[in-house]
Amino acid sequence: METRVGFIGLGIMGFSMASRLLEAKYPLTVYNRTRSKANPLINRGARWAKNPAEVAEHSDVILICVTDTPDVEAIVSGPDGILSAARPGLIVVDHSTIAPSATKKLSAALAGEEISMLDAPVSGGDVGAKNGTLAIMVGGEKEILDKVEPILKRLGTTITHCGPSGTGQLTKLVNQILVSVTNMAVCEALTFARKSGLDLEKTIGVTAGGAGGSWQLATLGPRMAAGDFRPGFMINLQQKDLRLVLQSAEECKISLPAASLVHQLFTAAQAAGHGKDGTQALFTVVEKLASLH
Amino acid sequence: METRVGFIGLGIMGFSMASRLLEAKYPLTVYNRTRSKANPLINRGARWAKNPAEVAEHSDVILICVTDTPDVEAIVSGPDGILSAARPGLIVVDHSTIAPSATKKLSAALAGEEISMLDAPVSGGDVGAKNGTLAIMVGGEKEILDKVEPILKRLGTTITHCGPSGTGQLTKLVNQILVSVTNMAVCEALTFARKSGLDLEKTIGVTAGGAGGSWQLATLGPRMAAGDFRPGFMINLQQKDLRLVLQSAEECKISLPAASLVHQLFTAAQAAGHGKDGTQALFTVVEKLASLH
Repeated sequence: METRVGFIGLGIMGFSMASRLLEAKYPLTVYNRTRSKANPLINRGARWAKNPAEVAEHSDVILICVTDTPDVEAIVSGPDGILSAARPGLIVVDHSTIAPSATKKLSAALAGEEISMLDAPVSGGDVGAKNGTLAIMVGGEKEILDKVEPILKRLGTTITHCGPSGTGQLTKLVNQILVSVTNMAVCEALTFARKSGLDLEKTIGVTAGGAGGSWQLATLGPRMAAGDFRPGFMINLQQKDLRLVLQSAEECKISLPAASLVHQLFTAAQAAGHGKDGTQALFTVVEKLASLH
Repeated sequence: METRVGFIGLGIMGFSMASRLLEAKYPLTVYNRTRSKANPLINRGARWAKNPAEVAEHSDVILICVTDTPDVEAIVSGPDGILSAARPGLIVVDHSTIAPSATKKLSAALAGEEISMLDAPVSGGDVGAKNGTLAIMVGGEKEILDKVEPILKRLGTTITHCGPSGTGQLTKLVNQILVSVTNMAVCEALTFARKSGLDLEKTIGVTAGGAGGSWQLATLGPRMAAGDFRPGFMINLQQKDLRLVLQSAEECKISLPAASLVHQLFTAAQAAGHGKDGTQALFTVVEKLASLH
């Protein structure tokens, strides 16, 4: 029998991911807070469910892709949540980036009803979601991952089992520390370069191939230089992830001075109206702060 | 007539560079504070000079590769320095990383004697020096660079004219901001990863190919994970370069909070006895600071 898939959360990422599963001919049931976003999928054969519980009734595997911890908590254990329609053997795969500690609690609550949960946050952005080239970081039982791997392979090219429940989320947070502090490195370097009169494009060209090189420099550096702040990844979302990083670090009593600094400067960027700009708009704050007047 | 080359400063980098020019059959005159380091080159046909002035007498182009600003100042304008044996048309190429403002002053002083100077700091480390694969960032007149380019091509694969005098040094400092703050990103990310119980090698593998990826992560991350602190690039030298960054930033009245933070943490690393370790030993400080006890 074919695996029936449910998909909850049809934002930019989720919509593309659900769309790929529909293309792959999986029987698909979808739910989203705003129904209209589901219409293109319903027109192509997806079944609409009026709440997560109804998704659970029609699915063997439920994928979730929403914004934050409370969203996933509501979907799992809220009224008309997945738990209210509990069926042993159901598998829940959460692609959202949420608090690792919350993930572990939800996973334990679901396990009480013989439902398995994997945390499986992704990186690769809207382009990766569209093309099925996401990197998927998975926490939870390896045997459960083995079962859903054919589905995940429709969504991503790199699927890594990181360890037990929560380790997918933790690995994603490690990634967000790297992304944001490396972004800061690029912002300060290009600020110094511009203020000292260097040609930014030439400077990026010279440094990108060496020990100072990074994805952030090669990809976001030229956008900073050009003043192009259109979002690849939005500052508001980066801030949500950095909040998770710092909360998670506090729970483990870990001090992260550089990530904290970047979090504060992103707050200044939000205050200056850059919340919906791409993370490269951090450059505007670093540049202004470098020589206020 | 063949270009006669002088080489001053036969440390790890300079020795390999001078050696490559000897291989390329340039008539070579060398000087170094400690003569014994020159012996292998003298045995292969290099002429020994007892001071920079004597190097100048026997050279059309003088390359310099020493540690810090005062070293270059002494070589150029000290007793028995290049200026004391001034000959119009001489070209001085300084591969050291020194203060951009000092470079401009030295270049102006030499110009008064019709001697041209290029600032041409390098990146690529001892391996790049040995294999002739350095990246060379050049400030000064383009026509002078054209004249010495055949020589520089024996030393590096990427030779970039960054702009007028000082811009080679400024570009190198931009590179050092990138290198050190990106290093910090890796240190905090791996600290968070280890303290939360993640497998470091797996975590590096998952993140290195994405938006958090960098040369620092791919190259130094595994060494941090393995506790291998042998120097590629020594913390003491990184600190010298960060001092130049911050002095230069102060001259332009630019605030660089992240680079300053990393400079302070490297100071803690030096205090803990890691000065002669590689820059990846920053990890030990970040990890200890993260949860002191």
